[in-house]
Amino acid sequence: MMMHMRMKFHEQLDALTDRLALMCRLAGEAIETATDALVNADLPMAERVFDLNERIEELRGPCEEQAMALLALQAPVARDLRQVVTGVHLVTDLSRMGGLVQHVAESMRRRHPEHVASGEAEELLSRMGRVAAELAGLAERVLRTHDPELAAEIGRRDDELDDLHRRLLTLIQDPSWIGSIPAAVDITLLGRFYERFGDHTVVVGRRVIFLVTGEQLNP
Amino acid sequence: MMMHMRMKFHEQLDALTDRLALMCRLAGEAIETATDALVNADLPMAERVFDLNERIEELRGPCEEQAMALLALQAPVARDLRQVVTGVHLVTDLSRMGGLVQHVAESMRRRHPEHVASGEAEELLSRMGRVAAELAGLAERVLRTHDPELAAEIGRRDDELDDLHRRLLTLIQDPSWIGSIPAAVDITLLGRFYERFGDHTVVVGRRVIFLVTGEQLNP
Repeated sequence: MMMHMRMKFHEQLDALTDRLALMCRLAGEAIETATDALVNADLPMAERVFDLNERIEELRGPCEEQAMALLALQAPVARDLRQVVTGVHLVTDLSRMGGLVQHVAESMRRRHPEHVASGEAEELLSRMGRVAAELAGLAERVLRTHDPELAAEIGRRDDELDDLHRRLLTLIQDPSWIGSIPAAVDITLLGRFYERFGDHTVVVGRRVIFLVTGEQLNP
Repeated sequence: MMMHMRMKFHEQLDALTDRLALMCRLAGEAIETATDALVNADLPMAERVFDLNERIEELRGPCEEQAMALLALQAPVARDLRQVVTGVHLVTDLSRMGGLVQHVAESMRRRHPEHVASGEAEELLSRMGRVAAELAGLAERVLRTHDPELAAEIGRRDDELDDLHRRLLTLIQDPSWIGSIPAAVDITLLGRFYERFGDHTVVVGRRVIFLVTGEQLNP
């Protein structure tokens, strides 16, 4: 009987992990799509982002309920408990990633049919989008494998994103930049959305390290 | 014995709540101090913000450990379980509020001895800071009282903050605005930090509603 309970626990935990990994995959697909929408001023593509974000949000409730059920019915301890609590946190991180992507698509839609950015700024945003999508892919793999090495890799790749972000802010603040203040405002916010998206993938990685080692993550 | 265990549980839960409320109070004090630092280009005041944020971060580990201990040792169910899981989420929200305040102080320090903003933009940021500090005060009271009415009040007051934020972005994008692009970039980010701070106080309120009613919060 006890054996049966524990098997059921791990089956349910696997189901939760699958859902979290799906949320992460959708967030990655969404940031890639949002970046394409941004670079091509493509409104139907932005609409796809809203659909993807809706699917992410639809997964949130079931994940939260599943985590609560695991805590309430199974009273897990030690590593099992850490894994469920990590799941509770991850739902919030992944949902926030979806929200940030939504902001990118909204920013694009607001200026349509104009492009939000052009020239080098657009190129940098496009590169940030590519790195962000890769980060989401890494985070999905970390969720599935619990591999601390992959989690560390997220940190390194996120440094690249931060570097692109700094270059973007330097570019638009250079006296030679020919954009307007409204364009600068949009680009500043977009850069911030991508940066925060990356930060959340780092947190996903760190939470997995906590899961494996039991050591608190640093801020 | 059972009675004794439950008393101990609620004592520990109260201790966790006290710590969370303290984190929230420090976040409120920090945003008030950061806003003063910003408006007066006062560097020592910005340093005080870093100290306050450090105190917030120092509370984070003990809160997380306490929540884990409550889950592991007491295996709470129903409302008790919801309260601990809410606590797990709140640590993250409150720590993030501290992080956002830190960003405000860093932005101020980067331009020192210049003012980051001036004139009407500075006045709007100052008002945003005042509302944000009040929101943190309300959130602290919600944490202590679990009063859903106060939680709803946070939502209404946050609408005020969002309105000030919209006015700020409209102001700096108006062709008559005389600021530079670097100033616009700083002000855009500062506005975003205050807005997100407010959002987190709303989430704190919503989580308390979830605690009281057991119904999932909407995004």
